[in-house]
Amino acid sequence: MLDVKSVNEVIEIINQHFSGYTLESEEIGIEDAVGRITTEDLIANEDIPGFNRSSVDGYAVISRDTFGASEALPAQLFLAGEVKMGEKPQFSLKPGQAAYVPTGGELPGNADAMVMIEYTEDFNDGFIYINKASAPGNHVVFKGDDIRTGKVVIPSGTYVRPQEVGMMAAMGYPRIRVQRRLCVGIVSTGDEIVSIDAQPSGSQVRDINSYALYAGLINCGARPKFFGVVKDDFESIRKTVEEALKVSDVVLISGGSSVGNRDETYKVITSLGLPGILVHGIAVKPGKPTILGKVENKAVVGLPGHPASAYSIFRVFVCHLLRVMCGQSKENSPVMIAEMSCNYPSNNGREEFLPVKLEESAGKLSAHPVFGKSGLISMLTEANGYIHISRGSEGVNQGEKVQVVLWR
Amino acid sequence: MLDVKSVNEVIEIINQHFSGYTLESEEIGIEDAVGRITTEDLIANEDIPGFNRSSVDGYAVISRDTFGASEALPAQLFLAGEVKMGEKPQFSLKPGQAAYVPTGGELPGNADAMVMIEYTEDFNDGFIYINKASAPGNHVVFKGDDIRTGKVVIPSGTYVRPQEVGMMAAMGYPRIRVQRRLCVGIVSTGDEIVSIDAQPSGSQVRDINSYALYAGLINCGARPKFFGVVKDDFESIRKTVEEALKVSDVVLISGGSSVGNRDETYKVITSLGLPGILVHGIAVKPGKPTILGKVENKAVVGLPGHPASAYSIFRVFVCHLLRVMCGQSKENSPVMIAEMSCNYPSNNGREEFLPVKLEESAGKLSAHPVFGKSGLISMLTEANGYIHISRGSEGVNQGEKVQVVLWR
Repeated sequence: MLDVKSVNEVIEIINQHFSGYTLESEEIGIEDAVGRITTEDLIANEDIPGFNRSSVDGYAVISRDTFGASEALPAQLFLAGEVKMGEKPQFSLKPGQAAYVPTGGELPGNADAMVMIEYTEDFNDGFIYINKASAPGNHVVFKGDDIRTGKVVIPSGTYVRPQEVGMMAAMGYPRIRVQRRLCVGIVSTGDEIVSIDAQPSGSQVRDINSYALYAGLINCGARPKFFGVVKDDFESIRKTVEEALKVSDVVLISGGSSVGNRDETYKVITSLGLPGILVHGIAVKPGKPTILGKVENKAVVGLPGHPASAYSIFRVFVCHLLRVMCGQSKENSPVMIAEMSCNYPSNNGREEFLPVKLEESAGKLSAHPVFGKSGLISMLTEANGYIHISRGSEGVNQGEKVQVVLWR
Repeated sequence: MLDVKSVNEVIEIINQHFSGYTLESEEIGIEDAVGRITTEDLIANEDIPGFNRSSVDGYAVISRDTFGASEALPAQLFLAGEVKMGEKPQFSLKPGQAAYVPTGGELPGNADAMVMIEYTEDFNDGFIYINKASAPGNHVVFKGDDIRTGKVVIPSGTYVRPQEVGMMAAMGYPRIRVQRRLCVGIVSTGDEIVSIDAQPSGSQVRDINSYALYAGLINCGARPKFFGVVKDDFESIRKTVEEALKVSDVVLISGGSSVGNRDETYKVITSLGLPGILVHGIAVKPGKPTILGKVENKAVVGLPGHPASAYSIFRVFVCHLLRVMCGQSKENSPVMIAEMSCNYPSNNGREEFLPVKLEESAGKLSAHPVFGKSGLISMLTEANGYIHISRGSEGVNQGEKVQVVLWR
């Protein structure tokens, strides 16, 4: 019998064993940095903005000159000049003076506030009439208000989104250092598995899992590599996994669905080195016959053979493993809120990641469990995502609001 | 004054004007197909499975031979043989016979059910003893149960997830036809904008938007192309946008934040051809000064200058535009459920996409509005996502559950 672990125990084992994994860094252009993880603190080498900047079109003023100004009694200020976009003003304001500054332009010296053009009048008499008082700092972003010199703006270990790319541009970093991508080898096993361009005969089936995993790994930001289909015997599997481990951080063994095949995977991991097997069976539906092992500091995962089970385990556990190996802390998945279309009983003692199909009608999103015999591959594409039904749960009732994690 | 449109009006205008856009197709390997959109119906050329398949390790039986069987009174069946993984059984069952079949193996002829090995006994006397009755179809996936020959399994226009890649593998399609990616040109305008490797002087700022947009476009599956930074005058902008339109499906004009700059963008779009301007201003915070135009069948978008505003408009409207141009119907975004950390009043009459920072403590996720003067670029990276506050809303109360769309 398997020494079956709970979902949380497996997550904990992954955190414990793979948190310290180190990945070398490489230099790339920031336009390619989205989805990568930084390996250096990006520090502001200058104040941003580097000057007192107007955030409106209007007139720079010394704010106390405008105190008490109103439409009935405007403040009359001498028009000292105009600041052009992108240019440094060559003058400072003296008391009683104002100057035109466009949005994004620099305030002249001594100016401490802006008045929006809507609250001013210009009669071309050399003066500008201010109809509204402006407090110090109004509509102004002062030098360094946004980012101050020396600040660690993007710390090492940051997952780069488009926004961070924008920030790198703002700070003047055209190239940065990031972790290299995780290399993940995919080994397909099973006497019945044939290549996808072959015509299966007898009870042969094409190699579905390798391709679904390959695509899933690309979505996770990893660099997948196929190691082909191998027969269901110890020596063939061992030789291929050993070869894969030389150039991979993680090896996924997938394909065979027979008990014999899982036994070989177990023996192969054990034979490759210490610490060996960490998890042999997870109390989860689908995907119970999952194996997690560690060979030196690398991870080897034996996935269940059924495509829908293999992909579910991949999304929940392998994606977490990859994040942990990249030094990324636990990430909660965004969800779709939907209404359950029927009652669904719990699986006493076994957590479930129930595949559901989402359907929208009249603006209401409903979640329909995707039922089907074990091993149907059509379950893979029918489901939009899954609901996590915990061990303690009494199941889900029709009409109940559920959180659907999208499968992609 | 701008003829400001509501969020829904703009979405409707996008749907109306850009739904029929056609993109040529190209052939690619399925390992590269994730995130692409298919342009041909993928039809099953054979039944899947192509044989009656066992989903357990055990014995194939003619189910009626097991009716009434129990531990007290097992059914005694003659062991007719063993089926090996991946092989076609060379025999059929006769009444009173059983045969061993592994998970995934093919049932011999006449067998219509499986009995799990746990419910059988083998005393090596040439018979197998069945302790539990099995109904027709038990633990069997019949030929074509999963997918039947001739079925359109993946219709043209499907967005390819890893699961569809697995399904393509199952059906024996190593290569498929997909839409080419949308080409999106990025034009940066503004007298104050300098290249990201330049040292800004005076009130110059580096070209943030081009890079954030470039990265965001990659995340959307588009093919972005930089067209450089151009000065804030009609002729320069027109020339560059015209050049960009020749090789792009969409052109994003970004950078300048002054009113003058927006005026030039408006004039340039109008000058390039019909139908011209579709939207000039959106009743939304942030991002009111957004322009959407159409030149022949292509889209030109004038984005607000402030990076946080530009990115917000990009996520909400440009990403929708790109989906529509790819023939993808409206996609609801998955969300994080969080608790609002403070009261936030509504923006009477103007919808708001409020940037928030997510913080987890004691397993509770809370959403903190990211406040800051207009134009602060640090708002970009501080926020994890946004809350959509609709026009009719009275705002959000502290402690209220909110749905946060992640910004990435």
